[in-house]
Amino acid sequence: MNVTGIFPALSTPFEADGNVSLTGMKHNIRLYNQTGLAGYVVLGSTGESVMVSRDEADQIYAAVKETAAAGKILIAGTGAESTAETIARTKRAASLGYQVALVKTPYYYKPTYRAEHFIHHYRAVADASPIPVLLYSVPVFTNITLETPEILALAQHPNIIGIKDSSGSIQRIGEVVAGAPSRFQVLTGGAAVVYPCLVMGGRGAILALADLLPEKCVELYELFQQGRHEQARQVQLQLVVASKTVFGENGIPGLKYAMELRGYKGGYPRSPLLPLKEEKKHPIEMLLGELYPAAARV
Amino acid sequence: MNVTGIFPALSTPFEADGNVSLTGMKHNIRLYNQTGLAGYVVLGSTGESVMVSRDEADQIYAAVKETAAAGKILIAGTGAESTAETIARTKRAASLGYQVALVKTPYYYKPTYRAEHFIHHYRAVADASPIPVLLYSVPVFTNITLETPEILALAQHPNIIGIKDSSGSIQRIGEVVAGAPSRFQVLTGGAAVVYPCLVMGGRGAILALADLLPEKCVELYELFQQGRHEQARQVQLQLVVASKTVFGENGIPGLKYAMELRGYKGGYPRSPLLPLKEEKKHPIEMLLGELYPAAARV
Amino acid sequence: MNVTGIFPALSTPFEADGNVSLTGMKHNIRLYNQTGLAGYVVLGSTGESVMVSRDEADQIYAAVKETAAAGKILIAGTGAESTAETIARTKRAASLGYQVALVKTPYYYKPTYRAEHFIHHYRAVADASPIPVLLYSVPVFTNITLETPEILALAQHPNIIGIKDSSGSIQRIGEVVAGAPSRFQVLTGGAAVVYPCLVMGGRGAILALADLLPEKCVELYELFQQGRHEQARQVQLQLVVASKTVFGENGIPGLKYAMELRGYKGGYPRSPLLPLKEEKKHPIEMLLGELYPAAARV
Amino acid sequence: MNVTGIFPALSTPFEADGNVSLTGMKHNIRLYNQTGLAGYVVLGSTGESVMVSRDEADQIYAAVKETAAAGKILIAGTGAESTAETIARTKRAASLGYQVALVKTPYYYKPTYRAEHFIHHYRAVADASPIPVLLYSVPVFTNITLETPEILALAQHPNIIGIKDSSGSIQRIGEVVAGAPSRFQVLTGGAAVVYPCLVMGGRGAILALADLLPEKCVELYELFQQGRHEQARQVQLQLVVASKTVFGENGIPGLKYAMELRGYKGGYPRSPLLPLKEEKKHPIEMLLGELYPAAARV
Repeated sequence: MNVTGIFPALSTPFEADGNVSLTGMKHNIRLYNQTGLAGYVVLGSTGESVMVSRDEADQIYAAVKETAAAGKILIAGTGAESTAETIARTKRAASLGYQVALVKTPYYYKPTYRAEHFIHHYRAVADASPIPVLLYSVPVFTNITLETPEILALAQHPNIIGIKDSSGSIQRIGEVVAGAPSRFQVLTGGAAVVYPCLVMGGRGAILALADLLPEKCVELYELFQQGRHEQARQVQLQLVVASKTVFGENGIPGLKYAMELRGYKGGYPRSPLLPLKEEKKHPIEMLLGELYPAAARV
Repeated sequence: MNVTGIFPALSTPFEADGNVSLTGMKHNIRLYNQTGLAGYVVLGSTGESVMVSRDEADQIYAAVKETAAAGKILIAGTGAESTAETIARTKRAASLGYQVALVKTPYYYKPTYRAEHFIHHYRAVADASPIPVLLYSVPVFTNITLETPEILALAQHPNIIGIKDSSGSIQRIGEVVAGAPSRFQVLTGGAAVVYPCLVMGGRGAILALADLLPEKCVELYELFQQGRHEQARQVQLQLVVASKTVFGENGIPGLKYAMELRGYKGGYPRSPLLPLKEEKKHPIEMLLGELYPAAARV
Repeated sequence: MNVTGIFPALSTPFEADGNVSLTGMKHNIRLYNQTGLAGYVVLGSTGESVMVSRDEADQIYAAVKETAAAGKILIAGTGAESTAETIARTKRAASLGYQVALVKTPYYYKPTYRAEHFIHHYRAVADASPIPVLLYSVPVFTNITLETPEILALAQHPNIIGIKDSSGSIQRIGEVVAGAPSRFQVLTGGAAVVYPCLVMGGRGAILALADLLPEKCVELYELFQQGRHEQARQVQLQLVVASKTVFGENGIPGLKYAMELRGYKGGYPRSPLLPLKEEKKHPIEMLLGELYPAAARV
Repeated sequence: MNVTGIFPALSTPFEADGNVSLTGMKHNIRLYNQTGLAGYVVLGSTGESVMVSRDEADQIYAAVKETAAAGKILIAGTGAESTAETIARTKRAASLGYQVALVKTPYYYKPTYRAEHFIHHYRAVADASPIPVLLYSVPVFTNITLETPEILALAQHPNIIGIKDSSGSIQRIGEVVAGAPSRFQVLTGGAAVVYPCLVMGGRGAILALADLLPEKCVELYELFQQGRHEQARQVQLQLVVASKTVFGENGIPGLKYAMELRGYKGGYPRSPLLPLKEEKKHPIEMLLGELYPAAARV
């Protein structure tokens, strides 16, 4: 299973009453189908998966599955705190047609967890999973970092095909590329470091920013593939600025507001996340106006 | 609602096959009923609540409710990431006979969360809850600390009766006691700082260590109540050492092993937590042998 | 050597032109001589020791020595990054009449330093020092915490008489009191936790706040000595609020401004520390007005 | 002043008796003179500057100055906690013939320092300095990170020519390249991220690893300059592994041991740093054997 290229970490649009907007979700997918995105990641951190019930998750999985264009790779976020629940979610996603499981680290009992706990957990999940597993290290949310030794140990498992590393550390990407079998695929979760990741041997990226700027993200990937380094650098610098402006202190609410400006369905976040404040909107509007002078909309 | 005194943060015993041992849970409650514990806290961090399904939670709530002696205050851990789910769990616990909801902070989107998010979240929960709410700040697991300003703001809400502060900061306990209305009750989650908490004006403690050493914890509380400061200090020093030995790097698996030694049902933890390693058992056995020379068992 | 009681961590007043105000220093000492302070700590963190040259340090040591009343214990901050320089400063302070050396941890090479480095460092200093040594753990400035195992190892050294622990952790104070020989003296550096430290078996405190409120700090200590717990708690709560108000985000510039209000010589801080901003002054003025209604001045 | 290319952050060799080995220093410089290194950085973090007296610093400055080949750019680490001392050291270095001052952030009073303190400090230093100033952010040692807004503010100063960013964050390098005037030069301090830094628009690197592997570091730089990306990536992966092996948990003592193996004068570190333990030596010997199969020595 090849997970190269750019994948959006799909956000989940909610209605004002708090319900999932499956219509909005499908609207977005139809727009994304027209781009060079390699596939879709459903219910990762950007998808507010920790806010969503199991029933809602099933509906979201189904909506994306039925709307995705042929050939788009479907990746399901299935990580839970317990090993058993993670396996159950992974099997469920596989039965609904998902091709890869993105499994974030457990994190609640961080003072007790050691490398051996993560190795034990991921091996059990990979052994039980009918589909290939991607490790997922996202310390900004979990305060857990998968370090190089445990990643390299897990890279030996035949059903673990790679990692999404959202730590932002390009050094670790280098260490993993240098130490893992070449079949092990490294993707970054940081829109600001896609190009550095690629030059070090990473295969692609899973990005919240690709919900908003899929064409730019794909363009960067293709420029790199073509060896057009200076142009790639220029697009990367645009993404650096865009990422800072949209997310910065805003997080998901910033993304959702920006998506609406471009004609996507961003929708509401779920509480305790709150809609973007008025005073935070202007920089995002300015940014989109600069990136798309004629029309900021899709 | 008065939540003074010592409450155990109940651990949840699992069988070797991973199922919840309701029999074990009831066994423990029957033993605790004979002590001076003020009540029971079900499905907090020590109860592995993040490992437990909603159906299992219902069974655990019911098992403790039906076994608890009259007069024991029943507190349910009901915090979830989303405000809506927290309210749903709180209402469910209230309907099952629980008297107080212990609500940990949301934490996943920590780079976005500010004081205003916590204030908004807790107010919504307290407004909707049929039972009084205790704030719960447990940075060791969540990396979120409720700071004094937001605590004092929330202390004004008529349905928020206090806080379990597991940060270990006695300074913050002082700040809250100095700044909150006197009806606002401060409890510590740290077995090593119960006595310092009490001398500063705290009302009691919710302790994992009270699963193992309920008599000692209650003794400390009573000695303080009687103004026997030097004896209280001596018992506190015992709890300092016991807490370090049992938990230390071991966490919940250490507690579960120690509970078995004393005749309680500790059971297995859920993966990715792993049973205590052989080489970690000896210090715990030594500790219990010193605390209870004649017999370490109940 | 007995270091019980309350010691001010003396601030160093600078003139507007950046020179040390030895006159101001002596003025303060004369005022402090009239209080129940147990002695003086010169050139600790509050004294901006990292901003002061060796020549200036000598002048400051001499000024305090010549002004201090008989019986006041003189403690010199002598910690430097290198072991050799720490020993040199310690010998110098001893030769100038100082009775105890307060030695902060080395900290610059923190990714390399392990417990063994601290043990090696302190043993070398204590072996070479003509005067007794106090360990000094101040993670707020150094990001290094002396943990209980290394403290207990060092507590065995005959020339190491105790520790100033400024971490604010009352748990660690309990661990050290429980594990160290009774001759080993634990002092806190946190004005907000003096009373909790004392009830756990600590001997006293070295406090920046005692530069400003020496009488209140001494009063707390004496109330505790007399077993007047409720009154001690009340004074401690006053110090909690005062400490937050004066230092909070202000640090040393807040202290210096407040000292001037009470008739002490606070003087200027050294750049990059900056004088207190106008908008930060009012809360300090309010606090002193409440503590000393008739007159906020000495 | 152009600071592009690779600069070694020179280590300072000490004799067994603790004295600076000026002979060793000169021996190293003579070897480095034969490489493509762009110049020398004296008394940065790797040079144990915090362990060195002002007199020793003068001798070291002079030794490097007199030995350096013509055309090698001389950069002096001159950062101290106080603004005044930093200016004094900078003027001294300039008077001894140094061309650039590398000024690390102040850090001791980190709870008080805000962006404005760093801006004030650096502007005062740059105003007073007869030579151009490089900012230096090294959070691994200082726990202070210069963030993009203050870097961009300082990049406007005519006497601040760039930054050595040792945080390892390639995202920040992108942000600074995107936001600063093109004359502002960004260098990384991380040997594991030189190539990613360069592709993002950085100008070079100041590296402890360049004390040991100057040819490899220069080779990487030149491959990038020639647009030979795949070869640059391969050399970067070698440096990733080398950096982890030499430094890892070893720090400066690992570097010093490795330098001796290659014929440089590594010498002893100063206490509390301790010579490399026996069991840590083998991986370094293996690494050098693999990098230089015929002979690991210069």
